[in-house]
Order: sequence, then structure tokens, then C-alpha cells
Amino acid sequence: MISVDEALKIIVNKGEVIDRVDLVGLDSAYERILAEDIYSDIDIPPFNKSSMDGYAVISDDLVNIPVDLKVIEEIPAGYFPKKTVKKGTAAKVMTGAPIPEGADAVVMVENTEVLEKGMVRILSTVKKGNNISKKGEDVIKGDKVLTRGAVLRYQEISMLAATGNPRVKVLSQPRVSILATGTELVEPDKVPVPGQIRNSNSYSLFTQCQSSGIIPEYLGIAVDDEHDLRKKIKKGLDSDIFLISGGVSMGDYDFVPLTLKESGVKIKFEKVAIKPGKPFLFGTKGKTLIFGLPGNPVSTLIIFEVFVRPVLKKMSGHSSDSQLKGKARIGKDFNRKRAERQEYIPVSISRSGVEVRATPVEFHGSADMMALTKANGFLVIPAGVNKLTMGGMCDVLWFSSDDPSYMPA
Amino acid sequence: MISVDEALKIIVNKGEVIDRVDLVGLDSAYERILAEDIYSDIDIPPFNKSSMDGYAVISDDLVNIPVDLKVIEEIPAGYFPKKTVKKGTAAKVMTGAPIPEGADAVVMVENTEVLEKGMVRILSTVKKGNNISKKGEDVIKGDKVLTRGAVLRYQEISMLAATGNPRVKVLSQPRVSILATGTELVEPDKVPVPGQIRNSNSYSLFTQCQSSGIIPEYLGIAVDDEHDLRKKIKKGLDSDIFLISGGVSMGDYDFVPLTLKESGVKIKFEKVAIKPGKPFLFGTKGKTLIFGLPGNPVSTLIIFEVFVRPVLKKMSGHSSDSQLKGKARIGKDFNRKRAERQEYIPVSISRSGVEVRATPVEFHGSADMMALTKANGFLVIPAGVNKLTMGGMCDVLWFSSDDPSYMPA
Repeated sequence: MISVDEALKIIVNKGEVIDRVDLVGLDSAYERILAEDIYSDIDIPPFNKSSMDGYAVISDDLVNIPVDLKVIEEIPAGYFPKKTVKKGTAAKVMTGAPIPEGADAVVMVENTEVLEKGMVRILSTVKKGNNISKKGEDVIKGDKVLTRGAVLRYQEISMLAATGNPRVKVLSQPRVSILATGTELVEPDKVPVPGQIRNSNSYSLFTQCQSSGIIPEYLGIAVDDEHDLRKKIKKGLDSDIFLISGGVSMGDYDFVPLTLKESGVKIKFEKVAIKPGKPFLFGTKGKTLIFGLPGNPVSTLIIFEVFVRPVLKKMSGHSSDSQLKGKARIGKDFNRKRAERQEYIPVSISRSGVEVRATPVEFHGSADMMALTKANGFLVIPAGVNKLTMGGMCDVLWFSSDDPSYMPA
Repeated sequence: MISVDEALKIIVNKGEVIDRVDLVGLDSAYERILAEDIYSDIDIPPFNKSSMDGYAVISDDLVNIPVDLKVIEEIPAGYFPKKTVKKGTAAKVMTGAPIPEGADAVVMVENTEVLEKGMVRILSTVKKGNNISKKGEDVIKGDKVLTRGAVLRYQEISMLAATGNPRVKVLSQPRVSILATGTELVEPDKVPVPGQIRNSNSYSLFTQCQSSGIIPEYLGIAVDDEHDLRKKIKKGLDSDIFLISGGVSMGDYDFVPLTLKESGVKIKFEKVAIKPGKPFLFGTKGKTLIFGLPGNPVSTLIIFEVFVRPVLKKMSGHSSDSQLKGKARIGKDFNRKRAERQEYIPVSISRSGVEVRATPVEFHGSADMMALTKANGFLVIPAGVNKLTMGGMCDVLWFSSDDPSYMPA
């Protein structure tokens, strides 16, 4: 039985960043990882641009104000000026319009008065360059604007649009397969007969993948029959990450470890010092990572959060550790006789200012998913620790970073 | 010109939770809001269930150990026992299997030895109830397990599966339309001719909606031509939220406010004391909210984060304020002459322990999206404040709660 930290290290080391790329449109690029450097095909702004509605002028003309200037042209955004502004003249410009030759500043329309016979009165001075965005001030044509490995957020997608990249190469996402095992399982649309229970693990695992931006493939339920299991395992081994729930404890009917070995999977470990979730198998075949998850729903959910999500992020090309760890003050004493395992206990985490508090919810053990609907995270009791005292600080793991109580350590 | 807080209050008050529902499968339910109460059609567990591989026994039989018992039956998970355990007998049970009549505890297989002639030797005592998950201990048939308004996370989706709800009613999401306006605009796949610029706002807005879980409808570019604009505005007004970028300043070619008024939109305000982003229009028609966003990319991005995202969340049925506000220490002095507006400045926020620091990135103003690719948030200078001193605390707004520097105030 290895420790949580050892197991995580083995898993993360085995995960390799996916070496395939997808070409995606801008509507499908959010939170993907750029697989190429991006250069601009234009200057941004592409021309000297007015940042105001007003008049393009020669700033030296406005030393003594008010001054009356002849309006030689009107330039809406989207049109290119035909005339040159000379001493004693001005051009009317709209926000976003190009500045005509000769002009070196823009006077806001609020500081002008329209006169008769095509004249305008200028009521304020301006400095050279005022209200003009200079050609290329943000980006020069040929500049590298985004670097391979960048996460595409709103602003990067805006830059892709601005620099003429309507389609972009991004890292492919890991292909994840999910398989449920167990003769006792029926799908949610069936009513279980005595001895049966509903399959819920596949659906929580599916959602956990979705929350990392990945749509997994669901392979269904393999009954505890070697032939069916072997066929479905063969299919799952085609993925980058293969999640199998159930069938990995030591029972006489648990064919999963055996079938995996026969299929060429190298088992790295079969037990981890974690509670709940001890009977948890990890293996590899080529670059494929195989997770044999416990049958109990809470155990499976925890194993995903603690072990699968970090490697999924790594394989997707995300650099940051995505575990939402932090510290909280404990609302209750904890005592346990045996301390071999790192234990995860569902808690309700609340925050008041910088004070974070973790209060356990009623919890009947590794099958009690109902308890997790009342929780927003886990309290973590490290291996070797028998006792946590009310009021002391402990490690917590949030379910979501959008939680208002979230406060990283 | 109204303040940021006044404007936000007006907007959020006008947003109503969408009163339509969708029926979705469990693969499409993540982060949706439940539109019905959910009851369980079964007990969970549905029967007294073994939580271990081992032997179901009568605990009183094990007062003097070791004791040899006759194995009357073997019960895998998924099968229902046919026999009753009586004094001097035991049934072999797998994890998840039903406990047979008569037995009141399970001895782990590790604490047993198989003997000849269908006998097993039990090496340890157990207490009544040990290693048994009691029928209905987590959920009783008919219990309300989830309440209307709940956000569906992994655990709620697991509960939906377990309680026989493969399809579930959720609140419909707001329908959002995006329209770009401006004769100067071309789409990202075109090379702009002199005077033109590429449309990037539609793509950042699209992505910002996606990050709230919504796929908006993109209506394309309306050139500054009243007929085209009127047609596209008519279409956009069919949405719940209509985002129009550009065409809302006071220029002679800005038909947007006029066309909106003609279409029956009640304009609530046209200017907000925010920098960048002052020329920002908000109106309503029936339950539809209309946002006239500035043409400059950074302004548009900020207006979405500050004003659109909160109301989008409210209309989606999410209760929490989703703005990622916090406090940081300033890495530089700020001085400004005019303090009428609340100002947003792109910064790189970093954290070391509980210390959060905001360092401005190079920024040329409201068109400089390149600056935002180097930032992970905004520093906020409130209206009325002329000066921020290096080393002092300031308000910041993160782009993402997944940012390792994120630390709410």
C-alpha cells in the first residue's frame, strides 16, 4: 500500500502531454492550449486612428483659441481620407476613423462649434498626438502575439481575431473512456430488482471530465463476465485515459485486474493509503493510463479529484496544479484509531473575511453520495494523524473554485 | 452620467430568472439549475449491503474465536440470497452483495480461513452491524433528495442517476445574441483594406458567454446602414440578452441608439462613469435586456465582466455573485487628474502566501487587447480617487477563479 503522494507522483509522471493537434475555429477555442506561435499579419492599429469623434487638426494651429478652421473633408470610420490637412484646415473624424495626412491631433467634438460655410470653431488647444492611436502602437506586423502553450482566454481569442487567425492549432484533448463493471448494476432508467443497484459512478465521472472541458466516451456496463469485460477493456485501451469503476477489490468475481494484465496492462499499484478509496488500481499500456476505481460512488469521486484530474490537466497541456487546496479551521474534534490512510471527509466550508471554517456534514461512508450534496469540499486528515482538535487548522479541498468560500492556502 | 454601482443595480434589477425549462439528460446537466424537486424512487442502499468481501455471520456466534462455521451459500454482488443464516452457519458475500436473512455482521475475508467440506474458520470477532450498509441509511424511498434551484455538480448528477432520474428539468439558459456594428469592420478571415479593422469584439463576447456556460447566437456585422441595422436589431430583440458592440458613441454615423428607440427599446442610460467604456448604453424591451457596448475591444471586454456577467448569472438562476473581486497591494504609484470615472487598469496579479500584489502591464488604452494577454486581472480605481500609492491596498478583479493568485477579499 503506497501513500497518496507517492501514488500521485507515479501517475503524474506517466501522463504525457497529448502530441496531437486540432484545428479549431474561434467559437471552439476557449480554454484550449495553443499548439503554434501566432504572428500578426497587420499593424494594430492598422493606421493612425481617431479615438474620439471630433476634428483632425494641426496642433500648432491652435496656439490662440478660439480659432476657426475650414473643414476639408468628413471621414467616417471605415473610409480612408482623400485630402491632406494643411495650415488653417481641419477634417471631421469619427471614432475609429483614419487620421488624414498632415493632421497631428484630434479635438473632441464637445470642444468645437460648427459655423456656416464649412467652417468649425475650435475652443480648446490640443497637444501633438492627442486623441490619436498611433499605427502599430499595440502590435507591429510580423510580431509574435501569442506563444505556443498559451491558454486561450477571451483576450487571446480577441487577438486571434484581430490578427487574422480565424482557425488555430490547439493541443488535442485527452480521449477519456468510462466503463462501469458489476453484475449488480443497472442504468438510471431501470428500476433495480432485489440485489441490484443503479450505476451512478459513470455519470459523476462523465461530469467530472466535462468540468475539465473534456467529453468522454461512455462504454456502458460490463457485467462480471470475462468475455464482455475483455471486449470493453480492449475498446477502452484505445483511449488516452481509461476509467473503470468497480471490480478492483479482491473478491472472487473481480475480473478487472486479471483481464487488464492479460490485455498487456502493466499494473503500477493496486492499493493506496487513502480513505475512502483504498482498492484503487493504476496501470499503463503504452501511453494509455488505466484507472481501476472503487465501486463505491464517493470513493470514485474522490479518486478522480485527487488522482485523475491533475494528470488530465497535465495531459491537456495546462501547467497549473488545478487542485483547489487550502486551509480551514475545524468545527469539530476528530479521533480515529487507525491512521495508516489519508482520509477525506465531506465538509461544508464557509468563510467570513479571512476566516475559513470546515464543518463536517452527516456522512455514512463511501456509498453516501447524499452527504456530498450537502458539502462543498473535503477535509483531509493526513496519514499518521490520529486526532484533529476543534478550532485547529486543517487541509481542505474545495469542489469548485467558483465557491465564494474558496481561499487557497 | 451615472456611477458604476448605480448602473449595475439598474441592470441586475431588470434581469429576471428565465421562466422556461429544458428537459436534459445527465450528460448535459452539469452546472445547470434544477427546475424541479427530485425524489428518490428507492431506498439507498436498496437492501442491507456488504461493504466488504467476507462472510455474513451472526455476531453472537463469534464470542469464542476461532470458530468454524458451515458456509451455506455464496452471494456475489447482483444476486439475491436464497437461504437464511442460522446459528453455526455463514454465507460468503462479495462487496456490494445483499446480506442474507439471519446474518447481522460481515467478517472481512482477511480474517478468515477456508477449511475443507464447506467450512470456514473465523479468526476475529465482529460487532452487530459491522461491515453492513443498512437499507435506506442514506436515502429513504420518497425522500426529497434535491431541491429546485440547486446547481447540478458531480454529486447531484450522481444522485439523479441513483434515484432513477435519467432526464431532469433544468432552467433554460438565457438566449444571448451578439451583433457587431461598424462600416470599418471586417471578419477575421479577411485582410482589412486601408481604413478597415478586424472585428474582434464579437469573438471575445462569444467566449465570455461560453465561459458562463452559454452558447450565444452571432448575428454578424451590421454595416452603418439603417436598413441592415434595423433588420439585425429586430432579430436580436428576440433574445433575452442582446449585446451590440460599436455605434453607441455620439458620432453622426452612430445609428444604434436611434434604431433601438424606434424598435421600442426603452433606454435606461447611455453613459456610465467608467474608464474605459463610458459610451455604454443599456435598455430594455419587455424582458429583453439590450447592451450597447463600446467599439473598442478592451472597453467591451470590461463592460461584459462588470455589467453583463452578473445579470447573465442571475438570469441563469445562479445565486452567487460571480465577480472575482479581491484586494491586492499595488506595485506602482497611480496619479490621475480627473477622477469622475471608476477606472480599470490591466494588471498582473501574483501571490506569495497571503500577500497579493498587482503590477500594471504596459497598456495603451481601450483598443490595446495585447496588454490584456499579459494580464490576469484589473486594478480598480474608484471614482473620486486621484491617487493610489505604491504599497497600498487596492481593489482587483480577476479574469478567472482558476488563477492560482486568486484570493477573494
